[in-house]
Amino acid sequence: SEVKKIAVIAGDGIGPEVVAEAEKVLKVTEEVFGYKFETEHALFGGIAIDEKGTPLPVETLDICKSADAVLLGAVGGPKWDTNPKELRPETGLLGIRKALGLFSNLRPAVVFDCLKDASTLKPEVLEGTDLIVVRELTGGIYFGEKFRRQSEQGEEAVDTCAYNVTEVERIARQAFEIAGKRRGKLASVDKANVLETSRLWREVVIRVAADYPNVELEHVLVDNCAMQLLRRPSSFDVIVTENMFGDILSDEAAMLTGSIGMLASASLGEGSYGLYEPVHGSAPDIAGQGLANPIATILSLALMFRLTFGYEDAAAAIEAAVAQVLDAGHRTSDIAVDKSKAISTSEMGDLIVAAI
Amino acid sequence: SEVKKIAVIAGDGIGPEVVAEAEKVLKVTEEVFGYKFETEHALFGGIAIDEKGTPLPVETLDICKSADAVLLGAVGGPKWDTNPKELRPETGLLGIRKALGLFSNLRPAVVFDCLKDASTLKPEVLEGTDLIVVRELTGGIYFGEKFRRQSEQGEEAVDTCAYNVTEVERIARQAFEIAGKRRGKLASVDKANVLETSRLWREVVIRVAADYPNVELEHVLVDNCAMQLLRRPSSFDVIVTENMFGDILSDEAAMLTGSIGMLASASLGEGSYGLYEPVHGSAPDIAGQGLANPIATILSLALMFRLTFGYEDAAAAIEAAVAQVLDAGHRTSDIAVDKSKAISTSEMGDLIVAAI
Ligand SMILES: CC(C)[C@H](C(=O)O)[C@@H](O)C(=O)O
Ligand SMILES: CC(C)[C@H](C(=O)O)[C@@H](O)C(=O)O
Repeated sequence: SEVKKIAVIAGDGIGPEVVAEAEKVLKVTEEVFGYKFETEHALFGGIAIDEKGTPLPVETLDICKSADAVLLGAVGGPKWDTNPKELRPETGLLGIRKALGLFSNLRPAVVFDCLKDASTLKPEVLEGTDLIVVRELTGGIYFGEKFRRQSEQGEEAVDTCAYNVTEVERIARQAFEIAGKRRGKLASVDKANVLETSRLWREVVIRVAADYPNVELEHVLVDNCAMQLLRRPSSFDVIVTENMFGDILSDEAAMLTGSIGMLASASLGEGSYGLYEPVHGSAPDIAGQGLANPIATILSLALMFRLTFGYEDAAAAIEAAVAQVLDAGHRTSDIAVDKSKAISTSEMGDLIVAAI
Repeated sequence: SEVKKIAVIAGDGIGPEVVAEAEKVLKVTEEVFGYKFETEHALFGGIAIDEKGTPLPVETLDICKSADAVLLGAVGGPKWDTNPKELRPETGLLGIRKALGLFSNLRPAVVFDCLKDASTLKPEVLEGTDLIVVRELTGGIYFGEKFRRQSEQGEEAVDTCAYNVTEVERIARQAFEIAGKRRGKLASVDKANVLETSRLWREVVIRVAADYPNVELEHVLVDNCAMQLLRRPSSFDVIVTENMFGDILSDEAAMLTGSIGMLASASLGEGSYGLYEPVHGSAPDIAGQGLANPIATILSLALMFRLTFGYEDAAAAIEAAVAQVLDAGHRTSDIAVDKSKAISTSEMGDLIVAAI
């Protein structure tokens, strides 16, 4: 079959370790399923700041653009936190999202059976929780004009939040499509009782809804959603919301599953192009010690197979292999009850490879 | 002693019922402690839209301005939800906050022993949770310029978020003061890795911190805070944040205590003036049936005694009376395990009055 190009960004902290395991998985799926992949590594984030003087070097963007999909480990760390804005890893993150047109961020929040007890929520409340937050990723207050000015009350800072009809419509359509393939329930989250962007958001979502009569739509105010996620997490199927609200609610949703170290995410643009990364961060405190859990990154690869390449067989095989290894009781230290029996990052990777 | 003037706004839904019970409590504290109050009722919210054609009539504002404090029940309901903006209850709410200069909203989130099980969080996680969210209430994206314009990608909506040094400094100072009188821990929540207003916010908070060497300050990103509230709620003491983040996080914090129907809040300006209201809403579905729980409103009155009038004895007496009635096993239906034994709104009010 056709060779698929994957840009691989290891990044900072535990990024290189978890990405290395995902690459092992990539290799074995080639052998097992006959797919062909070409990988190209690129510098991004803190390491790119150190080596190239910018978090998002032009070559990195070129490599990503010429690839069919991007696999990202994690970026950032205290080392770069006090840098000026242009020299911070998150500036690279915002830049790559915009440059690659990744307007949609999918963050599934599911409960792994073996991690049920890791949640701070009662098991009976969590039961059946399986939701996706669809977050708009290239608009809103993240990308609006920002500046300082003098006011009569001292220096003033300004951020601008803007959304146009096209931006809302494409993310809404995608969310309806996803909901239609799941349990058919979509919660659109906004603050329409206060924000003009939210009123536009709601108008467009209502208009798009007419094309998806089989999806049940509810509008939830963002403050209420922050509560309902706690009260009735299992009642949500797909949640669609703007950039800033999505940042907050997707983290809340991920944390309540107790499985945050195992969750994958996808950032998609037009067509099948996508960037895939674990939900967890670069965890600089445990970097380089073989302690990191590679499962979220490996599951991100499975998501890539499913959403970008349509390789459902390989995606399902990876997911089944992960489940099998967990069922057999293997744990990295982050999810081990008995830490003394924890296995290393590469041992976990090897076990998953063997299971495939 | 001097007569204190209280503006009483019953509002919509269960507002009138719960406020009526708080007024009974007001009366008995006059008798027991010798304080003198003069109350004046004012129309506000949905009922004001119906009767006066505006959610915030000029007379209401005048009554509030000439009072020493305001007691508010709840406003809003589906009846007015589809009204144009000027005719919606929440427009009145934003208007009254701004007109009365109520820049600081205190929302304590505490766990009531008798409601521990009502939380969806595990009891051991909740243990010891006792925090206050100090929310900036008259700035940020709530009050910035809002408009629509034509863009190349269709109609565009814009909201502006602005904060100046004076606005941040006064709320920061207040939060440090409050933290200094509690456990001495302040978490300032922002999104300084993305927003210019957050960077200004953080700069000012750091500057103000120099005056409060005994308060331990941490900066928490808003997405991380949404997670940490779930993971370690009891580790927070005071959280200070801007308007929109405060809206979301205070609701999340209130919900995780399981006690949301019992929580009081205070909105303060310069000096001792304040508006006091329950955290819960107008609950139109149960209005007029004697089912509402008046405790949050009664505790809001206690907060008023403490924060605006400095009547600590009366405040403590009310709180003790509430605790006593709950300890004796009395419950309104929202918090009753056995609903058939639930008492009515006025029965609960009478029991608290008797206990005082
Ligand atoms: C690092 C930061 C800019 C980023 C965001 O807010 O989008 C992160 O929190 C995320 O959610 O991917
Ligand atoms: C009704 C709404 C405008 C209001 C707000 O967002 O401030 C409410 O949610 C609150 O928190 O008091």
